[in-house]
Amino acid sequence: MSDHVYKHIELTGSSKEGLESAIENAIAKAAQTVHNMNWFQVTDTRGYIQNGKVAYWQVTIKVGFRID
Amino acid sequence: MSDHVYKHIELTGSSKEGLESAIENAIAKAAQTVHNMNWFQVTDTRGYIQNGKVAYWQVTIKVGFRID
Amino acid sequence: MSDHVYKHIELTGSSKEGLESAIENAIAKAAQTVHNMNWFQVTDTRGYIQNGKVAYWQVTIKVGFRID
Amino acid sequence: MSDHVYKHIELTGSSKEGLESAIENAIAKAAQTVHNMNWFQVTDTRGYIQNGKVAYWQVTIKVGFRID
Amino acid sequence: MSDHVYKHIELTGSSKEGLESAIENAIAKAAQTVHNMNWFQVTDTRGYIQNGKVAYWQVTIKVGFRID
Amino acid sequence: MSDHVYKHIELTGSSKEGLESAIENAIAKAAQTVHNMNWFQVTDTRGYIQNGKVAYWQVTIKVGFRID
Amino acid sequence: MSDHVYKHIELTGSSKEGLESAIENAIAKAAQTVHNMNWFQVTDTRGYIQNGKVAYWQVTIKVGFRID
Amino acid sequence: MSDHVYKHIELTGSSKEGLESAIENAIAKAAQTVHNMNWFQVTDTRGYIQNGKVAYWQVTIKVGFRID
Amino acid sequence: MSDHVYKHIELTGSSKEGLESAIENAIAKAAQTVHNMNWFQVTDTRGYIQNGKVAYWQVTIKVGFRID
Amino acid sequence: MSDHVYKHIELTGSSKEGLESAIENAIAKAAQTVHNMNWFQVTDTRGYIQNGKVAYWQVTIKVGFRID
Amino acid sequence: MSDHVYKHIELTGSSKEGLESAIENAIAKAAQTVHNMNWFQVTDTRGYIQNGKVAYWQVTIKVGFRID
Amino acid sequence: MSDHVYKHIELTGSSKEGLESAIENAIAKAAQTVHNMNWFQVTDTRGYIQNGKVAYWQVTIKVGFRID
Repeated sequence: MSDHVYKHIELTGSSKEGLESAIENAIAKAAQTVHNMNWFQVTDTRGYIQNGKVAYWQVTIKVGFRID
Repeated sequence: MSDHVYKHIELTGSSKEGLESAIENAIAKAAQTVHNMNWFQVTDTRGYIQNGKVAYWQVTIKVGFRID
Repeated sequence: MSDHVYKHIELTGSSKEGLESAIENAIAKAAQTVHNMNWFQVTDTRGYIQNGKVAYWQVTIKVGFRID
Repeated sequence: MSDHVYKHIELTGSSKEGLESAIENAIAKAAQTVHNMNWFQVTDTRGYIQNGKVAYWQVTIKVGFRID
Repeated sequence: MSDHVYKHIELTGSSKEGLESAIENAIAKAAQTVHNMNWFQVTDTRGYIQNGKVAYWQVTIKVGFRID
Repeated sequence: MSDHVYKHIELTGSSKEGLESAIENAIAKAAQTVHNMNWFQVTDTRGYIQNGKVAYWQVTIKVGFRID
Repeated sequence: MSDHVYKHIELTGSSKEGLESAIENAIAKAAQTVHNMNWFQVTDTRGYIQNGKVAYWQVTIKVGFRID
Repeated sequence: MSDHVYKHIELTGSSKEGLESAIENAIAKAAQTVHNMNWFQVTDTRGYIQNGKVAYWQVTIKVGFRID
Repeated sequence: MSDHVYKHIELTGSSKEGLESAIENAIAKAAQTVHNMNWFQVTDTRGYIQNGKVAYWQVTIKVGFRID
Repeated sequence: MSDHVYKHIELTGSSKEGLESAIENAIAKAAQTVHNMNWFQVTDTRGYIQNGKVAYWQVTIKVGFRID
Repeated sequence: MSDHVYKHIELTGSSKEGLESAIENAIAKAAQTVHNMNWFQVTDTRGYIQNGKVAYWQVTIKVGFRID
Repeated sequence: MSDHVYKHIELTGSSKEGLESAIENAIAKAAQTVHNMNWFQVTDTRGYIQNGKVAYWQVTIKVGFRID
């Protein structure tokens, strides 16, 4: 396991539901083209406001995946 | 749209429910006096502990709103 | 109250449920041996991915407790 | 001069022209209601892209002004 | 207590006496118009030098106060 | 709009003209292969010096674009 | 001396007197159970405000001590 | 040379040998598909521990390469 | 595996040999009393100089270990 | 080229014209006494305000030069 | 005043008295050889501990001075 | 020892051999003109890549030395 190499990509996902859902949306989208994703790290948490309420949540993550 | 100016304010909201709820409480309070809020960014996530459990969640956010 | 001294410890909790649950698990575990915990601050938010989905959430917190 | 107190506000200005112009727009807008502004510090530099070109520049600044 | 909302403002106080005095000057000035201030955090510590000596101390703080 | 996912890439552009031009060069190059670019953020500003003058400016930016 | 190992602990001390006193209180408390403390580093400086005045100062420090 | 554009990618390499070897493994892997790599910068240094010893070293780097 | 809790401790190891050796010394010392150590992260790299040469290397690491 | 040693100095230049000009002024001044300057990096961007307008721009840079 | 250039140097002063005194000692020492010093900024605050008490305080500052 | 004043300089050393060697080269060069160097701290670790391999390592350090 010690000789693996991982690449990181940075994604922003959004959701009307909440923080976990925004992260899951970003990962689900990336999973359509990226394989072997192993972990993520949150690097920014934001959201958009409309009429004095949170309209949707936006979370930026770094995702690490193994390069075969 | 390119000539708008935005001001940022920093707020801490709290809630017994969770992280999203603490953010929503801060924005709802600010909406009573501030108009045209557009986005927020989380800058600190904390909480208070009582008897070995989370008593309430505290999230600090920056909120940006358009100056007319 | 002004002459209290607090010590900080850093913990990482994990959960299949979500971010709040990962924090609560870390605090519940620490409560078995540490008394007088007063607050926490999130210092890192991560998670593990399996088959293109979040398998579990991992949150690192600093916990402050009063030294008697 | 040693007993002055300054307050800081954070603003985001935008412009189609460039970085200096975005800063000047933010300060001109604030000058309509804030007096005794003394200095600014850039805290974020961004921009929006349309059709593969910079549509406008956005600079966030902290502005310090003396409280009389 | 869990449903309070706090606002933060950033101030720079100065003093010929020392660091604590610069902080106290900023808070005393703010207390003339802001109520319910609860805590401060130091974000920058500076000073001005004249003739090879510290002429006055300047401390920048964030102050949190409860919004009723 | 709340269910979009964005990917970030990091680029360094350079120019003999100035800071805005270095950013525009990076975006123009990326636009040849990346579509739906929405925003950029400056993360580093540098330059090369020859014979005691700025020979060219180098700006590193993060660019966000929507994944369809 | 090159083969020593040090452990760091993080403490918050408070005092009504000032910044140095808050640090000294934290170290005096730790000295009751920790030996061979060598240095400290300030990581956060805060305080509590009551009736528009600093009620007490709070300084967070990392303390390094040699493990025998 | 002033009109080149560079792209950055982030990689984590690992090795049982040491820090330099972990970096070299990441670059060797990337060289199979990326051309014109010019420099790297270390952004994180970690390792895994088994039975009280370092089992392997993990170094995360940003790599810059010229886009033709 | 998702319900484990980890604690982090911070250590500084030193060595006349080099950076890896300073890290290994810190971990070997900690292994005498701490079990289930899983990973480390470097947070500071320093050294002492005598007669214009590096006398020994000092590396500060955070170590994570599972709490049973 | 691999055995060169560089020293960094930090300078603040100012200008009524703009950001690039403030940087160029700092480098021109340094060039009177420092040779072999190779690159700079911006570490702070500020300015002074008079009568609600930017009076002059101030940019702090690190400059690297080869030690022969 | 807009065409001045300033150079920054970094110093660590120490004192048995306290934080202000450590800063003043560093500036007094520098004043023996450096003229036109204008301001300082604190970048690190540390101290040495002997027998469970603060033996002396150490403050690192950046000092800016005008280059004529 | 409590009344010493230290000055910090920042250097980048390079080497084909590895990270320790790049640091040692920077210190050896500085030792030709600077006396009483006491410690260093690594602030940046980089390297140059040629033909898909590390051509040389570059480490930036701050060096502290006592001013007599």
